[in-house]
Amino acid sequence: MTLVIDNIAELITNDPSLGDGPLGVVDDASVVVDGDTVVAVGPAGAVADERLDAAGRCVLPGFVDSHTHLVFAGDRAEEFSRRMAGEPYDGGGIRVTTDATRTAGRAGLEPALDGRLAEVHRAGSTTVEIKTGYGLSVDSEAELASLAAAATPEATFLGAHLVPSEYQGRADDYVELVCGPMLDAVRSHVRWIDVFCETGAFDADQSRAVLTAGRDAGLGLRLHANQLGHGPGVQLGVEMGCASVDHCTYLSDADIEALASSDTVATFLPATDFSTRQPYPDARRAIDAGVRVAIASNCNPGSSYTSSLSFCMALAVRDMGMTIDEAVAAVTTGGAAALRRDDVGRITPGGPAHMTILDAPSRHHLAYRPGVPLIWRTLGADYRLQPAGGQT
Amino acid sequence: MTLVIDNIAELITNDPSLGDGPLGVVDDASVVVDGDTVVAVGPAGAVADERLDAAGRCVLPGFVDSHTHLVFAGDRAEEFSRRMAGEPYDGGGIRVTTDATRTAGRAGLEPALDGRLAEVHRAGSTTVEIKTGYGLSVDSEAELASLAAAATPEATFLGAHLVPSEYQGRADDYVELVCGPMLDAVRSHVRWIDVFCETGAFDADQSRAVLTAGRDAGLGLRLHANQLGHGPGVQLGVEMGCASVDHCTYLSDADIEALASSDTVATFLPATDFSTRQPYPDARRAIDAGVRVAIASNCNPGSSYTSSLSFCMALAVRDMGMTIDEAVAAVTTGGAAALRRDDVGRITPGGPAHMTILDAPSRHHLAYRPGVPLIWRTLGADYRLQPAGGQT
Repeated sequence: MTLVIDNIAELITNDPSLGDGPLGVVDDASVVVDGDTVVAVGPAGAVADERLDAAGRCVLPGFVDSHTHLVFAGDRAEEFSRRMAGEPYDGGGIRVTTDATRTAGRAGLEPALDGRLAEVHRAGSTTVEIKTGYGLSVDSEAELASLAAAATPEATFLGAHLVPSEYQGRADDYVELVCGPMLDAVRSHVRWIDVFCETGAFDADQSRAVLTAGRDAGLGLRLHANQLGHGPGVQLGVEMGCASVDHCTYLSDADIEALASSDTVATFLPATDFSTRQPYPDARRAIDAGVRVAIASNCNPGSSYTSSLSFCMALAVRDMGMTIDEAVAAVTTGGAAALRRDDVGRITPGGPAHMTILDAPSRHHLAYRPGVPLIWRTLGADYRLQPAGGQT
Repeated sequence: MTLVIDNIAELITNDPSLGDGPLGVVDDASVVVDGDTVVAVGPAGAVADERLDAAGRCVLPGFVDSHTHLVFAGDRAEEFSRRMAGEPYDGGGIRVTTDATRTAGRAGLEPALDGRLAEVHRAGSTTVEIKTGYGLSVDSEAELASLAAAATPEATFLGAHLVPSEYQGRADDYVELVCGPMLDAVRSHVRWIDVFCETGAFDADQSRAVLTAGRDAGLGLRLHANQLGHGPGVQLGVEMGCASVDHCTYLSDADIEALASSDTVATFLPATDFSTRQPYPDARRAIDAGVRVAIASNCNPGSSYTSSLSFCMALAVRDMGMTIDEAVAAVTTGGAAALRRDDVGRITPGGPAHMTILDAPSRHHLAYRPGVPLIWRTLGADYRLQPAGGQT
């Protein structure tokens, strides 16, 4: 069964051979899809078995959200309100979610995850990375890893999210657990390993130990770093060949230099800076220095409870010195690069039919109309889009 | 036909006699509606002809958006992107919309307005003020006034939005036109008169002349002031007894004092400060001094193209020092006060059944989940909700 989407006012392909500029923009376009695959991208007039009239809307590649923590229970609305009233953010609230998540078990976690995936889809994202990290015990991390892996190919083991209460004062022992029995329990499920390298979480040596163990187990590497202040994380991430170093709110000249001369992506999470009242990263400086950047949601119940990459793009344009074109690239090809994927984030013949259709005529509206739900349709996804237990 | 909305996890009534605190919060509540009127507010267990299961959601009074410019043609996405690339905002782009609006005429303007009203409803607002101000000639302002008045009881004449090109250098002559033939042509349609009192638009004397003419014509008074810098607007607004002075981004101690000792509402428009990269107003300071505040969208194609009061609330909590409870009050009872209404902005027996149901268990989520479309259902409205030309 073929489908033509036509009457597209502005099509972003991210393929410069198909259209104008780095985004490969085609005006007055159509896209033909056969099953789950794009078979033709071009000017108006294509025909197929079925037709979706975009009626002058803008079509983009489905967004790639390369950093989320979608497997959890409970919410932390009260903590959020206390923080907005002046309490500082130090990541300590993660333990609240850990308690709720351990208690909820699979029966509670699975439907909550399905609900969040449906929300992610409505927000226009068609690829989503999902981390563990609210289990922090061998059994619970194994459960979260299997839940994440059943939902998405981009599952990440984040046992080293925070030292759990039962290991307080014994961080090195916890790192040993993470690198040993916990990693053994999750390695068959996940593609990636990640560490929260930050004062109050794991230091550079501990982070290096976790990444090394992950690499030895055949996993790809990612890192949380430089969220709350300057630190060794970014340079460690580059040194270890991480696919992405995430947050990067605080970047020294040496950090920028290290990133620019590597193929490690700097992934900004501006909704987190919004929700923790941190300064925004200076994306302009990083991009001008040649750093490859991505933007992701960091959707989680503590520091960034949003699935909206549109919101993140509006922040990037308003407060991070990015142009809308750079922001669009950051949530499509940027997110794909952060996941070392070259299939997604593009609309190109032979590629997956993952698309976001805006209820607006151009990409500019993503920043120009902040807070307005502009996602009209999301087509395709490489994560699960019906309840795990059965049919919708 | 009666309807019960039950299984409400958190009901905001804004009636302290019905629930806790200034917001009158009732947990585990129900609301019974007869036609368009609330007939009972209370604990779970009420029965009626029909039932809407809120399933643990939060129900608030429909939002009151007391400042919009919804009657216009065209968009200014390009200007927005230029501004984000560094071009300053001086309000001059209003002329671009004036040209497009004059050209579009009623046939173009009416369906566009209907589409925007539908969007406003999806955003949870059930009362909306609509200004003229993109006509700036007698005929065109009369057309916009009749369109606005056919859509909402809260129509405002803003002939003094900007001096149109054909009156460049002759601002006083234009003010005479506004106060004379233009006011005569619109006065039967509108409830309010408004002026943009700002350097580059109208000075204090011109603004006073317009407000005085409006008052003499029996209209209520509103004012745009102190958006781009300090100025005489706020104190003029208080002196003239305006229902609301809008923007208030720059407030001197004397401005705060004048507002606090008056019944003029200070209406903040934070999405405008977002989209023009201005600083945010210090709402905390104003509230602590006893100023009555509202938050509105200022939805317009130049400086604030959003209909989302949820987005505005998130900005108010993050960047204006407001608590979520203050932000909720600002878009409900605050907006109502800015329109001198005491019927809307509340859920109370005998009042209109205007409600916003969040896809979330509490009001905190409005700031805690920025960018996520949380409006699950909007019930009722006192503006037109079907195309002017016929049935939906």
